[in-house]
Amino acid sequence: MGRYSKQSLEIQVQQLAQAAGVPAADAVIFASSLVDADLHGVSTHGVSRLSIYLRRIQERLIDPAAPLTVDRERGSVLALNAGNGLGQVQARKALDRLIPLARQNGVAAATIRNSQHFGALSWYCNAAAEQGLVLLAMTNCEPAMSPAGGYEPFFGTNPIAASFPTRRGFPVKIDLATSIVARGNIIAAQKKNQPIPEGWALDPEGEPTTDPQAALLGTVLTMAGHKGYALAMMVELFSGVLSGSAVGSNVGSMYKHLDRAQNVGHFFCLFDITALLEYDEYLERMDETIHRIKSSRKRNGVEEILVPGERSARVAAQNLAQGIPLSPDTLSELEQWCRRLKVEFNCHEVAACTIS
Amino acid sequence: MGRYSKQSLEIQVQQLAQAAGVPAADAVIFASSLVDADLHGVSTHGVSRLSIYLRRIQERLIDPAAPLTVDRERGSVLALNAGNGLGQVQARKALDRLIPLARQNGVAAATIRNSQHFGALSWYCNAAAEQGLVLLAMTNCEPAMSPAGGYEPFFGTNPIAASFPTRRGFPVKIDLATSIVARGNIIAAQKKNQPIPEGWALDPEGEPTTDPQAALLGTVLTMAGHKGYALAMMVELFSGVLSGSAVGSNVGSMYKHLDRAQNVGHFFCLFDITALLEYDEYLERMDETIHRIKSSRKRNGVEEILVPGERSARVAAQNLAQGIPLSPDTLSELEQWCRRLKVEFNCHEVAACTIS
Repeated sequence: MGRYSKQSLEIQVQQLAQAAGVPAADAVIFASSLVDADLHGVSTHGVSRLSIYLRRIQERLIDPAAPLTVDRERGSVLALNAGNGLGQVQARKALDRLIPLARQNGVAAATIRNSQHFGALSWYCNAAAEQGLVLLAMTNCEPAMSPAGGYEPFFGTNPIAASFPTRRGFPVKIDLATSIVARGNIIAAQKKNQPIPEGWALDPEGEPTTDPQAALLGTVLTMAGHKGYALAMMVELFSGVLSGSAVGSNVGSMYKHLDRAQNVGHFFCLFDITALLEYDEYLERMDETIHRIKSSRKRNGVEEILVPGERSARVAAQNLAQGIPLSPDTLSELEQWCRRLKVEFNCHEVAACTIS
Repeated sequence: MGRYSKQSLEIQVQQLAQAAGVPAADAVIFASSLVDADLHGVSTHGVSRLSIYLRRIQERLIDPAAPLTVDRERGSVLALNAGNGLGQVQARKALDRLIPLARQNGVAAATIRNSQHFGALSWYCNAAAEQGLVLLAMTNCEPAMSPAGGYEPFFGTNPIAASFPTRRGFPVKIDLATSIVARGNIIAAQKKNQPIPEGWALDPEGEPTTDPQAALLGTVLTMAGHKGYALAMMVELFSGVLSGSAVGSNVGSMYKHLDRAQNVGHFFCLFDITALLEYDEYLERMDETIHRIKSSRKRNGVEEILVPGERSARVAAQNLAQGIPLSPDTLSELEQWCRRLKVEFNCHEVAACTIS
């Protein structure tokens, strides 16, 4: 796998997005989101998705220049309509609109309907943390999980996330899907012809399976049984029902449905820390909390206790220094899109590397 | 186990709380919370806790008449100080303060420090739902779980909850501890001399155990491994760090520490649905969502798919009609406290019953 500089990847993605009809400033936002996911080692939400976004733009399933409009507005709350634009662009603009409201009132919230798969939640949460704010973010997604007792995919993997600023050079980042495992892990097992562990998925008849193929045709299980079901429901109600977007199995699939928009819904709630306590005091309290967690007693064989977000911050630092790894498949897709959209292919390896 | 009318239990708890120094109006709030937990089948957060609250009041570890004061205020956000008063009373008053702010600005949030164990989160969330509002609630608690890789209790079972109004006579209620299992289940296994399943807990040396005694001296595991750790951390940061309360293992234990206050922290965020969409449209969307979930395909052997909160609503309806079951232990504690505080004992069985 080759490694590529953050800047060169961002420029390449920007150019392709622009060539597909995304306005220049929006293409910068979009590229930043995709490359940031790869930077943090979340390649499933990174440049590997560019191809399907471009395809959906070309098929007119995404409007690359849609305005973000306000359906309803009261005090610190906005009900927004993404107009079927790029999720990353619209949600980032929504965050920008919430920031002055949160600074003024201490808290601000928005729902966003008519959107798409919008990448990793932590990109938005970390952006808020950089401004000294805490963003709680949720989104519904294309159906993958069933309610407890069922076997029909209804919920997406419905993630929930929040990032908290620290003075340690990285935010404490909570970002988790409510599924027991990412679908990507099942796809990986399928590619390697390996069975998946019991308890991950049901086959299309609702029976437990260890066959990745059957699992992909069936449903992924929620994390922690009924608790994951309850959390997935909460995410669906905040992001789907309250936003006015599609709900549950009505959300379109990014890859399977090339005849209709996804109509994903997002939910943001933004908090200004300084409405609650002095920022320095907050940072001190965070630092002490992190210190106490990291210095607590370790189980046999455990070298270090990490706080959520610490590992991915290390991956990002390494990738920033050494270049971001990109799979040969993703690279070849980039090349093809460059030819198709008449954009110069400019991704040159920083260094060759082996990723375990 | 005998069953008792909701009203008679409420009056009994009110009288005892008042006799212990809780102002009359506050005693009504307090009693309502405890009895509501029993009504919904959550006896661990119900009248069985009255004894320890009264004891802590008598030991001057809880101030039964503490005012709820404002540390800081901006727009829709309040940083509140419970003054070491009863958590149920102070948090319910906090909710009452948030309601007009949420109606005005669409969203409002509060932290509450210097509080106690404050019962079941869903009591607050359901109260909000009755007013057409959605309350997202979190709290830290006395230490029970360690960070991933550790074995020193740091986090409480740190629950998160939210209730959504419906037109079905009960709210969709999400209310879950981030532990794999409630400590109560381990205590129950201990009483029955039964082993606990693997994966529930670590012994005091950090090794996996199936011995309930060792588990109670050690740590309960988080639900869903690292995901539960991340969620417990999020709850701790919102309710502990941001509130200015004790954080993690500094939170006092209700039963073990009879020499100091608990200093628990809570976090509330309240949303006015009508800031986002018309209330009728919301109810329609909720109803359709519930209908689709309940009518989705069921796994073999599953008779009915329930939405979160549906089971506990049925328990509550049954208990309201037939009387609320109270264990002989709890009843005998009530009797003792009546003698001690010179309050007439007035709990008479509605009917005898067998609870499986």
